[in-house]
Amino acid sequence: MKSLTINTPSCDSTIYCGNGAFAERTSLLKDKRLFIVTDSNVYRLYKSHIESAFGNSPVHVIPAGERSKNYRQLLNILSAMLKAGVTRSSIVVAFGGGVVGDIAGLAAALYMRGVHLVQIPTTLLSQVDSSVGGKTAVDFEGVKNIIGAFYQPSEVIVDPLFLRTLPRRELRCGLGEIIKYGALDEGIYKSLVKNKNKLFSEEFMEGITYDCIAHKAAVVCADERDTGGQRKTLNLGHTTGHAFELYYKRKSHGEFVLIGMYYEIYIAKKLGLCDTAYADILIDLIKRVIKNIPVYDDAQKAAQFAKFDKKNAEVSHISLIAPQSVGRSQEITLPAERYCALIAECSRSIKENIK
Amino acid sequence: MKSLTINTPSCDSTIYCGNGAFAERTSLLKDKRLFIVTDSNVYRLYKSHIESAFGNSPVHVIPAGERSKNYRQLLNILSAMLKAGVTRSSIVVAFGGGVVGDIAGLAAALYMRGVHLVQIPTTLLSQVDSSVGGKTAVDFEGVKNIIGAFYQPSEVIVDPLFLRTLPRRELRCGLGEIIKYGALDEGIYKSLVKNKNKLFSEEFMEGITYDCIAHKAAVVCADERDTGGQRKTLNLGHTTGHAFELYYKRKSHGEFVLIGMYYEIYIAKKLGLCDTAYADILIDLIKRVIKNIPVYDDAQKAAQFAKFDKKNAEVSHISLIAPQSVGRSQEITLPAERYCALIAECSRSIKENIK
Repeated sequence: MKSLTINTPSCDSTIYCGNGAFAERTSLLKDKRLFIVTDSNVYRLYKSHIESAFGNSPVHVIPAGERSKNYRQLLNILSAMLKAGVTRSSIVVAFGGGVVGDIAGLAAALYMRGVHLVQIPTTLLSQVDSSVGGKTAVDFEGVKNIIGAFYQPSEVIVDPLFLRTLPRRELRCGLGEIIKYGALDEGIYKSLVKNKNKLFSEEFMEGITYDCIAHKAAVVCADERDTGGQRKTLNLGHTTGHAFELYYKRKSHGEFVLIGMYYEIYIAKKLGLCDTAYADILIDLIKRVIKNIPVYDDAQKAAQFAKFDKKNAEVSHISLIAPQSVGRSQEITLPAERYCALIAECSRSIKENIK
Repeated sequence: MKSLTINTPSCDSTIYCGNGAFAERTSLLKDKRLFIVTDSNVYRLYKSHIESAFGNSPVHVIPAGERSKNYRQLLNILSAMLKAGVTRSSIVVAFGGGVVGDIAGLAAALYMRGVHLVQIPTTLLSQVDSSVGGKTAVDFEGVKNIIGAFYQPSEVIVDPLFLRTLPRRELRCGLGEIIKYGALDEGIYKSLVKNKNKLFSEEFMEGITYDCIAHKAAVVCADERDTGGQRKTLNLGHTTGHAFELYYKRKSHGEFVLIGMYYEIYIAKKLGLCDTAYADILIDLIKRVIKNIPVYDDAQKAAQFAKFDKKNAEVSHISLIAPQSVGRSQEITLPAERYCALIAECSRSIKENIK
């Protein structure tokens, strides 16, 4: 088990990562006053783990799925915390994937203006990305993550144990974020290239998870509240990913990030901003995870949804993170029309390749 | 106009205080992207000030009164912010009393995980207390301030201009908090004693407001998130005040703080923890603001509500801040039964004095 600590202006957050982390760290929580939040899938699969790790602590179960990330579920959690007599010295344990982490994290941030929070991410996506860094949120009126807070967990417990029950689609989502880190970090990139034939192996995922967390931790230390620019790089693939997600809705967040990266790498290449051989290697990695990049019948319209993404404050222009070369990327801003045209062009090129 | 800056781990917050502060500071905001939150009373009284200071900026008006401090009004504000196209670089202006400051502050904290916030408190109570320090909250399921965040305003504009339209009852509420500061701070105490015959004069209130803010600012710098103990002292009068507020409901928060102080000074005196002559001077100050301390027919039952106050995590014991001597106070913890008995005893003593 490895560990590392994020020191931010607001608080310190320690991440424990590796086989055995769950058993070892939860044994230290047993005597504390806990309030567990999980979802119906995770509860079904890991009821016995929850019971043995947390004894008789109250458990609040939300319905599995992205649609639970709303204010009604948030209020349900806060109401259950009140009924369970959660106090300032209690600890909220978010046990599940990104949705559980986001909503339980926000509940912990808001209850009595903040109680302790422990994140135990159970999906690859939440292990490598969302459980670290303190971003919490719910969606509201069709806008993703519009209500939220920066709230650091005092502890994050990352154990590969939970990856074994994940469907391949969930692994794909996590690998999407891992490839994103590969486009930002030389070490992760080299590891991805070296292991490109065994991306789905547990051994590879366990090792790379720690590297991704370490990369993110360094970024979060430098720019906790996403104001300095460093943290923005973590949005690689997300501008276009979110736009498609808002318009098409049929896939999950991690898959849209993979698709978004594909399109954004196309744009970076097309504009001559990205080394061609490097772009092709990234595209190859993406295609090893998601075999067919979907062709969108209305890519231009979908791209217009990028305007609604809260990261794009100026609606006449769209910002995205363009990969340049190994370990290097830059933020670029395009007129919205130019961006939409490039997205449509990329979609046509995929269609032609299929023929 | 005086100013002072609170440096906390999360951000810096500057308070501008004095005649002319509103005109001078808002002239610098005019060209920014603003979103104004106010209540129906303040809007009626100061519509022209709002229009001249903020031009065509969107204004969201909540119904006046404590009952607006709920999550529905919070969601209404967030929804209006979305519709108005509020972005990360926008500034939320909370223009009103404590309720407006608390709810608009929380909306600013949550929207996109935090946008800029300017507090313009218009009541004496919010000027001396709630607008400074970054506590934001709404009530939920009958529990006061249970959903909230620590979120520092980048700027607080305190102008006595707005005190002129305040009913005497509102001034009483603010003077309640001012006397609380008097029980914590030697300078404020001396000023109160010296001016005891003109507590309601504008001249006195303007000067003392800055002193109270300066006291609070020092406490907040030392203990932003209310974990170090220093900030707890600001709860003098609040344990009992909140308990009565929950049970009787008929008065406003500031009046209950005055009443709570009266009872808690009685307890401190009774237990021999407080210098008698000093206690009598504090009681005299309180009675100059609220002539008759109410006699509660069921003081013991009301006192049991202190258990529900979130500051009292251990329900078998009640904590309160007991004044000792000029500029000194201490936190004491009593068994709940003993506390209830003392409250009932104080209530009987008031009744006997009336006879």
